[in-house]
Amino acid sequence: MTPTESLGSFPASHTAIAPLPNSRKIYVQGSRPDLRVPMREISQSDSPTAFGGEKNPPIVVYDCSGPYTDQDTKIDLARGLPALRKAWIEERGDTEAASAAPDLSGLARPPRRAKTGKNVTQMHYARQGIITPEMEFVAIRENLNRRAWLESLKTSGPSGEKLAASLSRQHPGEFFGSASPLPAEITPEFVRDEIARGRAILPANINHPESEPMVIGRSFLTKINANIGNSALGSSIAEEVDKMTWAIRWGADTVMDLSTGKQIHETREWILRNAPVPIGTVPIYQALEKVDGRAEELTWEIFRDTLIEQAEQGVDYFTIHAGVRLAHIPLTARRMTGIVSRGGSIMAKWCLAHHRENFLYTRFKEICDILRAYDIAFSLGDGLRPGSIFDANDDAQLAELKTLGELTGIAWQHDVQTMIEGPGHVPMHMIRKNMELEREWCCDAPFYTLGPLVTDISPGHDHIASAIGAAMIGWHGTAMLCYVTPKEHLGLPDKNDVKEGIIAFKLAAHAADLAKGHPGAQIRDNALSKARYEFRWEDQFNLSLDPDKAKIFHDETLPVEAAKTAHFCSMCGPRFCSMKITQEIRAVDASKEPAK
Amino acid sequence: MTPTESLGSFPASHTAIAPLPNSRKIYVQGSRPDLRVPMREISQSDSPTAFGGEKNPPIVVYDCSGPYTDQDTKIDLARGLPALRKAWIEERGDTEAASAAPDLSGLARPPRRAKTGKNVTQMHYARQGIITPEMEFVAIRENLNRRAWLESLKTSGPSGEKLAASLSRQHPGEFFGSASPLPAEITPEFVRDEIARGRAILPANINHPESEPMVIGRSFLTKINANIGNSALGSSIAEEVDKMTWAIRWGADTVMDLSTGKQIHETREWILRNAPVPIGTVPIYQALEKVDGRAEELTWEIFRDTLIEQAEQGVDYFTIHAGVRLAHIPLTARRMTGIVSRGGSIMAKWCLAHHRENFLYTRFKEICDILRAYDIAFSLGDGLRPGSIFDANDDAQLAELKTLGELTGIAWQHDVQTMIEGPGHVPMHMIRKNMELEREWCCDAPFYTLGPLVTDISPGHDHIASAIGAAMIGWHGTAMLCYVTPKEHLGLPDKNDVKEGIIAFKLAAHAADLAKGHPGAQIRDNALSKARYEFRWEDQFNLSLDPDKAKIFHDETLPVEAAKTAHFCSMCGPRFCSMKITQEIRAVDASKEPAK
Repeated sequence: MTPTESLGSFPASHTAIAPLPNSRKIYVQGSRPDLRVPMREISQSDSPTAFGGEKNPPIVVYDCSGPYTDQDTKIDLARGLPALRKAWIEERGDTEAASAAPDLSGLARPPRRAKTGKNVTQMHYARQGIITPEMEFVAIRENLNRRAWLESLKTSGPSGEKLAASLSRQHPGEFFGSASPLPAEITPEFVRDEIARGRAILPANINHPESEPMVIGRSFLTKINANIGNSALGSSIAEEVDKMTWAIRWGADTVMDLSTGKQIHETREWILRNAPVPIGTVPIYQALEKVDGRAEELTWEIFRDTLIEQAEQGVDYFTIHAGVRLAHIPLTARRMTGIVSRGGSIMAKWCLAHHRENFLYTRFKEICDILRAYDIAFSLGDGLRPGSIFDANDDAQLAELKTLGELTGIAWQHDVQTMIEGPGHVPMHMIRKNMELEREWCCDAPFYTLGPLVTDISPGHDHIASAIGAAMIGWHGTAMLCYVTPKEHLGLPDKNDVKEGIIAFKLAAHAADLAKGHPGAQIRDNALSKARYEFRWEDQFNLSLDPDKAKIFHDETLPVEAAKTAHFCSMCGPRFCSMKITQEIRAVDASKEPAK
Repeated sequence: MTPTESLGSFPASHTAIAPLPNSRKIYVQGSRPDLRVPMREISQSDSPTAFGGEKNPPIVVYDCSGPYTDQDTKIDLARGLPALRKAWIEERGDTEAASAAPDLSGLARPPRRAKTGKNVTQMHYARQGIITPEMEFVAIRENLNRRAWLESLKTSGPSGEKLAASLSRQHPGEFFGSASPLPAEITPEFVRDEIARGRAILPANINHPESEPMVIGRSFLTKINANIGNSALGSSIAEEVDKMTWAIRWGADTVMDLSTGKQIHETREWILRNAPVPIGTVPIYQALEKVDGRAEELTWEIFRDTLIEQAEQGVDYFTIHAGVRLAHIPLTARRMTGIVSRGGSIMAKWCLAHHRENFLYTRFKEICDILRAYDIAFSLGDGLRPGSIFDANDDAQLAELKTLGELTGIAWQHDVQTMIEGPGHVPMHMIRKNMELEREWCCDAPFYTLGPLVTDISPGHDHIASAIGAAMIGWHGTAMLCYVTPKEHLGLPDKNDVKEGIIAFKLAAHAADLAKGHPGAQIRDNALSKARYEFRWEDQFNLSLDPDKAKIFHDETLPVEAAKTAHFCSMCGPRFCSMKITQEIRAVDASKEPAK
């Protein structure tokens, strides 16, 4: 299949590659010329004269969108993205060319793997005291150039100094019991230390050099994942690649390709070659395709070959349902909704069919051997997560979580990076317990949860039910939040659903960062609220998570261009605008004269 | 103006009056013939044979929609709703006809007020040990006929007994420090006691006999309010009445009419005469209209007359910004967003213009005298609520809250029912403090919060940012959550926005009820999850908060009718459906034979 055949009329859609409004890509230079860390800079207009006429500084925000939104980059999906990390990987000298999988896409890179006896994981380097370029990259990335930005703002004059103080002021957070408090600035050494301790992962398959390094861990900004993937019922490769570029535009830090239909290999190849974010998969889905959907016919050999096939393509993390042990399955018998994880149910079916222990559990060390040869991270799957409020925190769920802790220990013996998947459906007051048990049993490995949804009664609005749980569990220390779209439980998300899910979860993740007290997290809120107060409508739209929708909503009520600078809100009209009245109050207050 | 003129071509729109799918209105009979408490009963289909073929019972849910969704009622907006409480009010013999306001709508009822020296508030009756029909009504309403439902289910045979046990099982909640734990069943005496103590209010103006009694208090189901109201910039009376009927259809427990434009009196009249839920207003808006928008020209007399005008129309609760004291205003000077409450900024402007104390504060006892003559509840306004994360929990906000506590004491001396309004914009970890201070300073008066929004950066999605905060503060004991629509900060909500806001907040309120452990709260989740597990798609839609959207979303992926009973999900297709696999696992488990 040629690129043209499989992607058809698909050049990157304009909506996914145009820079966001008033935004430009900037790069912060690291310690070597090829280490340039991308960020998005949102420019602002000056304050109106009535508000002091200040020069408002550009605001720097985290940017997952890769080269797509770079004003100076040309995107050609048929060629894939540049191999950003290629030199870093090769110069370590611990990898070599592997036997290539058949190239079905016309895009595949020659795969590499660790030389015999070598371990090429970021955790392995970290434990040896090595700071990789990847670690430096994420340290710079997490800081969002804040120190330089503040410095330049402070030295821009008296109003700059005042602005710097005001914009960077934030509430002390409440950070739940990490061994170290949140540092004011992330150093490469801090990143190395967190990875070495297993408290953070940096998913970076050596065969996915296109990816921009990012880190997942409680001490870092809360990340979100978006799931894409076709199913037997619909959607094409082009649609899935389009969903990926769309997802990262709106802020997906990683993307999971959950495809289950035909062309599973090609779809993944197209996604990987064009993905600047880590890609995760659930390899058992493809393995099951290979046995025509008959779970009981799965074998370790088929699964192993699938792992290697995907490892060579460049998948950055694998969901492995090794915690679904034979003995746990009867614990699900009295549940309201049984086993809702696809991978979990596949493995449970296999276990029962053979009356044998889950081969993902018995072969776990062999899986570690594969993963460390490519630096693929474990995402230890919660195959027994609760699928309803009724089943929350039940024996089956907790038995599996304990097993995942045991497996984490084994993975760490092999220096394989590991995160732990979590629920699911959990009422609010039982959320914190999940985080506490995960920390205790899984020794502080990053937690990666699906929601959790705080009620079952919201089909069509489950992105909200889950954003509530996600924000709360993020505050308590969950490192990455898997998004849920409005179509959850009902159907396949389209592009609009993907965006709605992502924005809901960016919002939840950011709310978690504010509550944890991440240094600088409040700058964007402060800047947006200042713009709101000063009736700088365009700045208010541009600083928001969804400038397009904010502008459309505003224009529905007040479409005229002049209203964008009008000193009143569209909700109240000119007479009743509280912000306008507040302005008058301040003026009165300043002059110490009663207004007439 | 005649009804026809002001409502034009507006009979109740079909979408607002048709019963919800598979739903019918039922009435639970109270102790007297005219005390019939409405609820919505959602019928379910039987379980498929593969799942045991059980008869699934109808599920009873709380119903705010009034006669509109009653299959047996004819709605005529030009005549208004029947006066449900008329006899109850009149037979108490403590009210008399008042001088009528000019009837501009053709709809107005002859107003009543307390006889000289009489106090006609529910709180007054409660403190005298009287259980009013209103109190009995809400007791029955809160219980949702649960005991009879369970009894009849249990006695319907062995599968009924099993079903009753399973559907009614729920997690013990975490209920924050009330003097009494949540009772398994709400009695009229419990309602009376909570109202007498000031821990709950039953807003029920004697001039709004159309309203179906409801209760707002920590020990009861969490309620939500929807704001409607035209502004100088648009929307007509017909649109506002339509928004009201639409809002209660989706679950608004009370509606605030925040109209500020022309026809403010007529709009309110039409809303009240057709509203089966309590209606709240912010009377200062209309008072300001009377002085052509010049806040400094407001006087006590103009305000007082406005209160009486609205009291005679039947408004059930008034937002009164009496906590915006002169001394508090300078505390807002260093805020990021100043005073964002319209009412708060109007009063602040008045205070500064005259350098005098807020007349709502100095005249508070006189206001109490008016309110107790009609049984209007105070909603003590948070005129100094934070409008940004930056301003959360600041001195201005807390100084006002303390004043509201002082005013609550005065209101209670007059037996005037009182609730307290709360923020606003608050990061997650600072939400609980708001609830704790409110309880301490305002002596357990019901808290009524706007969100709070947990971040500022989500214009266009602020219903989600606020649903997160609302769910959390609801769990901690907030009695009513004021909805926020996706248009918040950007424009006037249309009908779709109103619905989106309501569903987000119903979801948050229900999540709070689950977390607090309200008896029976989990029944609907359990029933919906059981339907999901058994692939009863229609039941899943019908039991959800938004059956219409759930069905549309499902049909987008799997439009054919047969798919509604298909034993797989639209997300995964037939092969990969985890629920289908779980079924097979259970079958294997039951037969103790490995599947082949």
